[in-house]
Amino acid sequence: MRYFEDFQVGQVHELGTYEVTREELLAFARQYDPQPFHLDEEAGRRSIYGSIIASGWQTAAICHRLLVRAVLEDSASMGSPGLDELRWLRPVRPGDTLSARIEVLEVSPSRSKQDRGSVKTRMEVRNQQGEVVMTELASVLFRRRPATTQGSGGSSRNGENGND
Amino acid sequence: MRYFEDFQVGQVHELGTYEVTREELLAFARQYDPQPFHLDEEAGRRSIYGSIIASGWQTAAICHRLLVRAVLEDSASMGSPGLDELRWLRPVRPGDTLSARIEVLEVSPSRSKQDRGSVKTRMEVRNQQGEVVMTELASVLFRRRPATTQGSGGSSRNGENGND
Repeated sequence: MRYFEDFQVGQVHELGTYEVTREELLAFARQYDPQPFHLDEEAGRRSIYGSIIASGWQTAAICHRLLVRAVLEDSASMGSPGLDELRWLRPVRPGDTLSARIEVLEVSPSRSKQDRGSVKTRMEVRNQQGEVVMTELASVLFRRRPATTQGSGGSSRNGENGND
Repeated sequence: MRYFEDFQVGQVHELGTYEVTREELLAFARQYDPQPFHLDEEAGRRSIYGSIIASGWQTAAICHRLLVRAVLEDSASMGSPGLDELRWLRPVRPGDTLSARIEVLEVSPSRSKQDRGSVKTRMEVRNQQGEVVMTELASVLFRRRPATTQGSGGSSRNGENGND
């Protein structure tokens, strides 16, 4: 179980890979982003992208899933207050395989609430050619490690409880 | 058909409303954000939110759908380079009805590409109590109105083609 204290500036977490199938791309576009260059093959060909492409919101959601599976699921995550930046740098096409990683930029204990702290990260997402398709600066709130459970189980990474 | 020239600083577009059903909330969480406080009623009750809540990514995707239906669908949208900020300010719960609006903050013709320009907007999303649940600063690229089609159809709003 990862707590706030388990995150340190400079840490990198590899989040794994995800193939964006045409079927999933179209299903998301139909539901949340029904613009022609996401949905219609001919409109995609005529667009500046040259093919249909994934909604940027789908790329972000897929990479969030990778983050949940790799990091948040086994953590004391309390949700996110938001993003400071999101850049869609290159199109994501049907069949592309995305790989994502985050680097920890800042760790800040909450001033007003003793039980939590904020971890700011930079996410970088690449396609199978190694091209960066998306970057994102986000914050997540984590519960601080309760004193009574210190060292009482779970895999303690290079964070422990002694930075503050 | 809305082109770049149809957007002006200070314009407000009301985007309509959307009810977030429990079923859609859970389906999105299962696929893209499987954290306990999005999926598990008991974990939601024990969380700082007091119930399960929608993934912030789903709130963003839903409001993007409202934006597509109200503005982008009948426009020369060329996609988005990204967001400058996204804030999830209050939880969105099953059964909440969201309403969204955008205000145009900046309009910038592209320096390198004559055929397009960027429109920067601030989105504000409220729940049925009128509380702001999300804000977002985003940019969208629009094609400029081709000289030959000027005045040749579509509803020309208070933008026309004469600002530059």
